[in-house]
Amino acid sequence: MHPSADRRYVLTLSCPDTTGIVARIAGFLADAGGWIVEAGYHSDVDTGWFFTRQVVRADSLPYDIDELRARFAQVAAELGAQASWTVTDTGVPKRAVVLASKEMHCLHDLLGRVAAGELPVRLEAVVGNHDTLEPVVRAHDVPFHHVPFPGDAEGKAAAFAEVERLVDKHEPDAVVLARFMQILPARLCERWAGRALNIHHSFLPSFVGARPYHQAHARGVKLIGATCHYVTADLDAGPIVEQDVIRVDHGDTTADMVRRGRDIERLVLARGLRWHLEDRVLVHGNKTVVFR
Amino acid sequence: MHPSADRRYVLTLSCPDTTGIVARIAGFLADAGGWIVEAGYHSDVDTGWFFTRQVVRADSLPYDIDELRARFAQVAAELGAQASWTVTDTGVPKRAVVLASKEMHCLHDLLGRVAAGELPVRLEAVVGNHDTLEPVVRAHDVPFHHVPFPGDAEGKAAAFAEVERLVDKHEPDAVVLARFMQILPARLCERWAGRALNIHHSFLPSFVGARPYHQAHARGVKLIGATCHYVTADLDAGPIVEQDVIRVDHGDTTADMVRRGRDIERLVLARGLRWHLEDRVLVHGNKTVVFR
Amino acid sequence: MHPSADRRYVLTLSCPDTTGIVARIAGFLADAGGWIVEAGYHSDVDTGWFFTRQVVRADSLPYDIDELRARFAQVAAELGAQASWTVTDTGVPKRAVVLASKEMHCLHDLLGRVAAGELPVRLEAVVGNHDTLEPVVRAHDVPFHHVPFPGDAEGKAAAFAEVERLVDKHEPDAVVLARFMQILPARLCERWAGRALNIHHSFLPSFVGARPYHQAHARGVKLIGATCHYVTADLDAGPIVEQDVIRVDHGDTTADMVRRGRDIERLVLARGLRWHLEDRVLVHGNKTVVFR
Amino acid sequence: MHPSADRRYVLTLSCPDTTGIVARIAGFLADAGGWIVEAGYHSDVDTGWFFTRQVVRADSLPYDIDELRARFAQVAAELGAQASWTVTDTGVPKRAVVLASKEMHCLHDLLGRVAAGELPVRLEAVVGNHDTLEPVVRAHDVPFHHVPFPGDAEGKAAAFAEVERLVDKHEPDAVVLARFMQILPARLCERWAGRALNIHHSFLPSFVGARPYHQAHARGVKLIGATCHYVTADLDAGPIVEQDVIRVDHGDTTADMVRRGRDIERLVLARGLRWHLEDRVLVHGNKTVVFR
Repeated sequence: MHPSADRRYVLTLSCPDTTGIVARIAGFLADAGGWIVEAGYHSDVDTGWFFTRQVVRADSLPYDIDELRARFAQVAAELGAQASWTVTDTGVPKRAVVLASKEMHCLHDLLGRVAAGELPVRLEAVVGNHDTLEPVVRAHDVPFHHVPFPGDAEGKAAAFAEVERLVDKHEPDAVVLARFMQILPARLCERWAGRALNIHHSFLPSFVGARPYHQAHARGVKLIGATCHYVTADLDAGPIVEQDVIRVDHGDTTADMVRRGRDIERLVLARGLRWHLEDRVLVHGNKTVVFR
Repeated sequence: MHPSADRRYVLTLSCPDTTGIVARIAGFLADAGGWIVEAGYHSDVDTGWFFTRQVVRADSLPYDIDELRARFAQVAAELGAQASWTVTDTGVPKRAVVLASKEMHCLHDLLGRVAAGELPVRLEAVVGNHDTLEPVVRAHDVPFHHVPFPGDAEGKAAAFAEVERLVDKHEPDAVVLARFMQILPARLCERWAGRALNIHHSFLPSFVGARPYHQAHARGVKLIGATCHYVTADLDAGPIVEQDVIRVDHGDTTADMVRRGRDIERLVLARGLRWHLEDRVLVHGNKTVVFR
Repeated sequence: MHPSADRRYVLTLSCPDTTGIVARIAGFLADAGGWIVEAGYHSDVDTGWFFTRQVVRADSLPYDIDELRARFAQVAAELGAQASWTVTDTGVPKRAVVLASKEMHCLHDLLGRVAAGELPVRLEAVVGNHDTLEPVVRAHDVPFHHVPFPGDAEGKAAAFAEVERLVDKHEPDAVVLARFMQILPARLCERWAGRALNIHHSFLPSFVGARPYHQAHARGVKLIGATCHYVTADLDAGPIVEQDVIRVDHGDTTADMVRRGRDIERLVLARGLRWHLEDRVLVHGNKTVVFR
Repeated sequence: MHPSADRRYVLTLSCPDTTGIVARIAGFLADAGGWIVEAGYHSDVDTGWFFTRQVVRADSLPYDIDELRARFAQVAAELGAQASWTVTDTGVPKRAVVLASKEMHCLHDLLGRVAAGELPVRLEAVVGNHDTLEPVVRAHDVPFHHVPFPGDAEGKAAAFAEVERLVDKHEPDAVVLARFMQILPARLCERWAGRALNIHHSFLPSFVGARPYHQAHARGVKLIGATCHYVTADLDAGPIVEQDVIRVDHGDTTADMVRRGRDIERLVLARGLRWHLEDRVLVHGNKTVVFR
């Protein structure tokens, strides 16, 4: 199969910094006639780490992605045992599963974006702990699974086991907690590490935990925000992918903040998810490099 | 029927400025025991015009809205023949009809917001010149009418006549052109004056007319924007309700601008519509006073 | 002396909310023929408190400011013992003293703004704990006092006593800590309560205390900010007047954040100070109402 | 002389795009042991042009900047006759001359930034068509030249000849029109092409020409902006380096817009100038690539 002119291979790599890495990678691509259409580099002075993301026209290379992976693996190996890399194909759509609750604004937004072709992803399923969203999800031709979450620990554990099963069968590239309102057990945080994205309704690290808009209102801040981060076992403390804020004033009640904050939650989650899907986000320790 | 504690009456008034207007209106409300929960005033030095918007708890007044209207009409009459006023009841939902095309992002956004209870409006109908959006619209329990727009003038006139019929039977408070992509005939601009809101995908007055993102790309601007304005017969020149921008750079192609601009179009239209529905927008000449 | 057409009296009042306050104040002004050019009202549902700020053309009133104060005191008295009010005259310039350190960007910015007529204030003096800024301050015709701050507690106490003396002799309306880098003793916090404005170089409540940009860098946030707040004995916890943020990314070192953050510090302090000087900021508990 | 660890060489290059350019440049640097600390690439699909900016630690190269230039010239030559490149040394401060008028806010801002070490530049001189700014400029140890601009064409021509002489003797890297309020003659536009930066007080292309805030007020826009662009003979139409906006509303008079717009003018000019001085701005046709 000949790849189309629009098809790209996306390479990411992070490794300890040293002289000549850019030349090594660029030389490797040039030797194969690779046409680079996007290239991002970051050299982190604090950690001494190097990060890159390269986008190559698929039709400019004389071999397929498997061969590209095999060859790039050799380049990466030269850069040391700590080097970490990925090679993906924009012609193969990424897969996502969304976990949602009754707070539906982020889910609606994602459905609309996918329908409009704005997000390079196939929504494999929506798992909701309420069934109110089912008709709209189905109208978008996305399967909906209702998994109620009881209040007791045992019932919750069973519900999470069911969620896990429903998610894992799709082997998703992204598990999106779209205001899911349930704290993932540590085991799932681990299992979906680097793939599970949450949207928290505050400008972290301010207002960790429950009811952040109430906290913001009580403190009298003049801006409220939202944070998209990777989920880790440490609540609301995972690597931050994107944040934004919106101005509020004394006239905004907590309810106004809740409503107005949704605009930021929607945008921040959509941007964070997009960058994740496009392999723009490289995680190192508890921080991210985002090649926008 | 006793109004609930959440129910409010919203009064707006504009008239030539003079001393004592605030006292006259505030006194009128105080005499009736009216509990003012929001009050905005604007005295425009250039035009010598005065604008106000008052929100009163419905249950604080000893009479109903008809009586309020009758009495407020007398107050307004004292302020001169040019005084213009409205009194509305938040307990009576506003009605809107949305005109849409294949560019579906604004429509999806509005449907999501109405479903989430973010916009104080009942969507009476969506009229689309393509039928692709029908399933999702119907899943939201909103009627969908498909009115194809042929290329010839006669066919277009007939299509607009049908749109007019479908819109007017709902006597909507707002006619929302959610990237409708058809220029309203002057007669409809007139008919729906002060009720028809359009979203234009540029920061007006830059890039009037067709393909504004292409114009923006060609000029090399560093921000792109969107404008929500009332529709007038003068294309893209009506009173501006809301505008916002987003940063772009040399890496953004026209296609990127089209995609990224949608985030601003969605937000700006939703905000403009919300303010219109809450009677926050007072038009004077070709400018607006927006009591946010 | 007849006041000019530009001269205004600014009235502020806060008191427990009840029906008829707007009418009482507006009626009071209308009875005297007062021409209101700006009017802000806020009714706070959580605390049950009412706030207003009114701006009246001085030449529209038949009496002078002393008489206005005497009469308005009566109106306020009717509104209860908890009512708090001010009446100021824009024809009488406010006075400010700036406390500065080696971090000179905020001071330079304030000097430039005052010189350009952007801030309605007379800079009575700058007190600096280094003398590097003296020539530029003097070139602006502002007195400069050098008060070194030794490291020991006793020397510091003496230095603060000298600062207090230098400040208090001007009876300033604003004491501006323009990156002063010294923690005010509790006694001065108390003495200058509601007049001392600080600029903190983070988006509070994130990153309280020392080296906030280092904290922000370590956490990997995507926005950095600044906060202008009234100084209280509780460090970085006083009522917030204004905040803003700027986007950063992985490419920004801590030094970049320090440099780029200055743009926000300058703006936020200048806006906060302006609003304070224009009597736009009403403090209630640990929160502010800002009539912009 | 051994360069310090902080000293960098900055290489920029633009040329028709083709495969292998990145590899050629990166290979060239790697062969010499060059340690790349920043690297930006842009491949423009519309024009088929390639742009890069590389920052190398000076102490990582075995030769000096003259040798670097000689060798890089050979690399560039291989990339075709249209290739355009620069190599600069951060150890050699850039030189700027500022042209100013009575609108002093941008000049004050630049002086403060230079004093605070925020801008990598030596201010060689300020040329003002009024002498009000002289004391403050001199307090910053910057020479001030007063060149009055008479109203008649002949006097103006003579004044511009004097400005030209005062500017050119410093061979500046940047000629900054900090609200200079005089239209440069075509000859000077040509002579200082790519070095003369202007700040226009609107979000171009809206409101070209005189009194843009008045135009903005008349149109009722909800945001006002400023644009930093290279000066060309075509008024306000040169390549845009940076733009930003600030929110206004119906309460803002033209005078308020003038005052509030200054905050954006200051920021936009300072950012544009900084990027220019750091060789981050590559001009191609009427557009810029800005490697931030």
